[in-house]
Amino acid sequence: MSYGQEETRQPQGSRIDAYVDQYAARARGMVASEVRALFAVASRPEVVSLAGGMPYVTALPLDTVGELVQDLVSRRGPVALQYGSGQGDPHLREQICEVMRLEGIDAGPDDVVVTVGSQQALDLVTRIFIDPGDVVLAEGPSYVGALGTFAAYQANVVHVPMDSEGLIPEALAEAITTARAAGRRVKFLYTVPTFQNPAGVTLSAARRRRVLEICNGAGVLVVEDNPYGLLSFDGDTMRALRADDPEGVVYLGSFSKTLAPGFRVGWALAPHALRDKLVLAMESAVLSHSAFSQLAVGQYLTTQPWREQIKDFRELYSERRDAMLSSLEALMPAGCTWTRPAGGFFVWMTLPEGLDSKAMLPRAVNARVAYVPGTGFFADGKGSRQMRLSYCYPEPDRIREGVRRLAGVIEQELAVRDTFGTGSRSDRDGVDTPGPDLA
Amino acid sequence: MSYGQEETRQPQGSRIDAYVDQYAARARGMVASEVRALFAVASRPEVVSLAGGMPYVTALPLDTVGELVQDLVSRRGPVALQYGSGQGDPHLREQICEVMRLEGIDAGPDDVVVTVGSQQALDLVTRIFIDPGDVVLAEGPSYVGALGTFAAYQANVVHVPMDSEGLIPEALAEAITTARAAGRRVKFLYTVPTFQNPAGVTLSAARRRRVLEICNGAGVLVVEDNPYGLLSFDGDTMRALRADDPEGVVYLGSFSKTLAPGFRVGWALAPHALRDKLVLAMESAVLSHSAFSQLAVGQYLTTQPWREQIKDFRELYSERRDAMLSSLEALMPAGCTWTRPAGGFFVWMTLPEGLDSKAMLPRAVNARVAYVPGTGFFADGKGSRQMRLSYCYPEPDRIREGVRRLAGVIEQELAVRDTFGTGSRSDRDGVDTPGPDLA
Repeated sequence: MSYGQEETRQPQGSRIDAYVDQYAARARGMVASEVRALFAVASRPEVVSLAGGMPYVTALPLDTVGELVQDLVSRRGPVALQYGSGQGDPHLREQICEVMRLEGIDAGPDDVVVTVGSQQALDLVTRIFIDPGDVVLAEGPSYVGALGTFAAYQANVVHVPMDSEGLIPEALAEAITTARAAGRRVKFLYTVPTFQNPAGVTLSAARRRRVLEICNGAGVLVVEDNPYGLLSFDGDTMRALRADDPEGVVYLGSFSKTLAPGFRVGWALAPHALRDKLVLAMESAVLSHSAFSQLAVGQYLTTQPWREQIKDFRELYSERRDAMLSSLEALMPAGCTWTRPAGGFFVWMTLPEGLDSKAMLPRAVNARVAYVPGTGFFADGKGSRQMRLSYCYPEPDRIREGVRRLAGVIEQELAVRDTFGTGSRSDRDGVDTPGPDLA
Repeated sequence: MSYGQEETRQPQGSRIDAYVDQYAARARGMVASEVRALFAVASRPEVVSLAGGMPYVTALPLDTVGELVQDLVSRRGPVALQYGSGQGDPHLREQICEVMRLEGIDAGPDDVVVTVGSQQALDLVTRIFIDPGDVVLAEGPSYVGALGTFAAYQANVVHVPMDSEGLIPEALAEAITTARAAGRRVKFLYTVPTFQNPAGVTLSAARRRRVLEICNGAGVLVVEDNPYGLLSFDGDTMRALRADDPEGVVYLGSFSKTLAPGFRVGWALAPHALRDKLVLAMESAVLSHSAFSQLAVGQYLTTQPWREQIKDFRELYSERRDAMLSSLEALMPAGCTWTRPAGGFFVWMTLPEGLDSKAMLPRAVNARVAYVPGTGFFADGKGSRQMRLSYCYPEPDRIREGVRRLAGVIEQELAVRDTFGTGSRSDRDGVDTPGPDLA
């Protein structure tokens, strides 16, 4: 029997992937990161991982959370175990509005969509806006998981440089003009304005105004991703971009860092018209988020002192930040520079000239310390001298030990460089799709 | 300041959706179903809903499930509340293989990807394979949620007719030939072979062999969606398509109907090369599924007599199926025909000539009974004389009462038709994006 055009699946064994000719264009960019195998090794207990962005959930009152989920099933089982609505539990959406008020946001539950982590919110926003080739503006460096999503929708990511005050407004304006002059459609600015992942820097108040002016003037939507906003170490909470521009900003939030990632509850707050599209996109993607997860988070917010818990997290992470910064100061060879975060999880370090963070990683893992090489945070191959160091998960003593090991590895690289003119080099590559441990 | 091309967002109030010019091409098809507003009314307690596909989770031992989730947090909180891997919990993946063995499937956990319901598995498979315009073959009628996903990726859905033995193999072969002759790329066959949603029919064993032969011969992947497979009323479990073709079938499974939808745990079992792409797509979509949900399902499977629970569900749904079929037989006017499901949740009913199920829906809801009009299950506007009737959620007495009300509405429509030559007519439309209550 003949079926016209030949698109025959090859017999087993004749090649590695029988479906290789049939994938969608977008799937061609879905390639595992080269550093994945290394991270499998890095998860061994003898390795100090400064790579992962895992929050320290052990600090939570686990017995209380256990009782709370039991109570939820006993009292509301038929709801918690059933399908929920695509937009998300109405009561949780009200509570989310209460959380956002801490950042100056005045919004109603009708404009909130609950998502499977803020990662899914990002996926859905990208799904709604991006045709292949459309431009997404993003800080350079930017969140590795966002770059993976943008790649999956074949966006053209244009990085905008940062300094210690965050995104540089003039560079943003210029990037928009340049992209449009080249005939590109600029769809949105993706930004993590507060305690940025991976750079650890925060957009200053003055620059927030400028960024909104520029994007408003140019008709460019702002996608504000703010998982770390409540984790400031001096106790002050930055005012969200969304607080000053309800129609120009989609705000993405998450309970992963202020409660726990295990429920995968995040959200998008969007201008009303966009909210409808987000709900439809949500339903076609997963029907609805877990009612159980949503009600568990809602129950936690209702019955537990969540503001106090966030304060506890701030103190815990502040102590770890201090451990990292003081040991970097004490141990890193001359020529290394790094950022000094006032909140969040990450320090961004730049190695001396001639060193390559990805090429160095196998030796670091061998010395029992891991980090994420900088190239993963750029869509354009930059970042080879840089790395992200996380202080969120290891205890302070382990952080100090990890930095000590890392300093030793860098010193050896410098010795190689000084002997041969350069340290080891990697082939640079573009976007890595990250594992969840790089969140 | 000028930013080149004008793509300026309109000032508030000048039009309804300020972003309307900026959406991706795929977002244009994301439109809410016209019948949505009606379903909001249909969820009132005085309405007998034969519309929703919600399993009867109240039959679960809720106290036991409550204790189980408490125990999980107490004993394994730091894992259950943390990020998990993109592929899903390894132990749960082993347990999933055990569940699939009941359908003759011999597979290893390495080829399973845990997803946010099988809906997400379908979304990810579509993401990997479908470029705009590519053909997806699907039964006519087909699962409304699948049609929503295919529309979101701009697939061209070609329906293949069914009879009481399921998909008609000759029609499948012809559809492939015709699509290819028209220069289309045929990417996969989407099928719900067992207790089909919405038609309630099951692909016979002989036809299963033919369907695999045809798809294999033509190099067309089969996506086998099997949420109801274990819910057979005579106790026999059909052998899955995947059992006889590990390389040519992606199998989608779910715990939504055999345990509870509230955890949103489904899965895909895929040929190995495809599995890698699925994990990468999963990570870019949501990073990872809820560790809590996965471990809760795993704990349930480990500690509870889940096979007995499925048997209880079978008996419960069998009794409801009987209530529906016997009251349809007793009450429906001449000219109505319907399918006789041997398992699952759904009966598919065809109205007499000249009646229109969507136009009739407001009168049915007014008479306090709801169903899903047939047009929602076709991408091509067919189904206007048909409807899906669910017996999974209401108690048998309510089912009988619902059928009684529905029969009354149909009799009135017939009276109108006999007077004016036709019943009320609706404008037909294409794919509705379903709410989760239509799962």
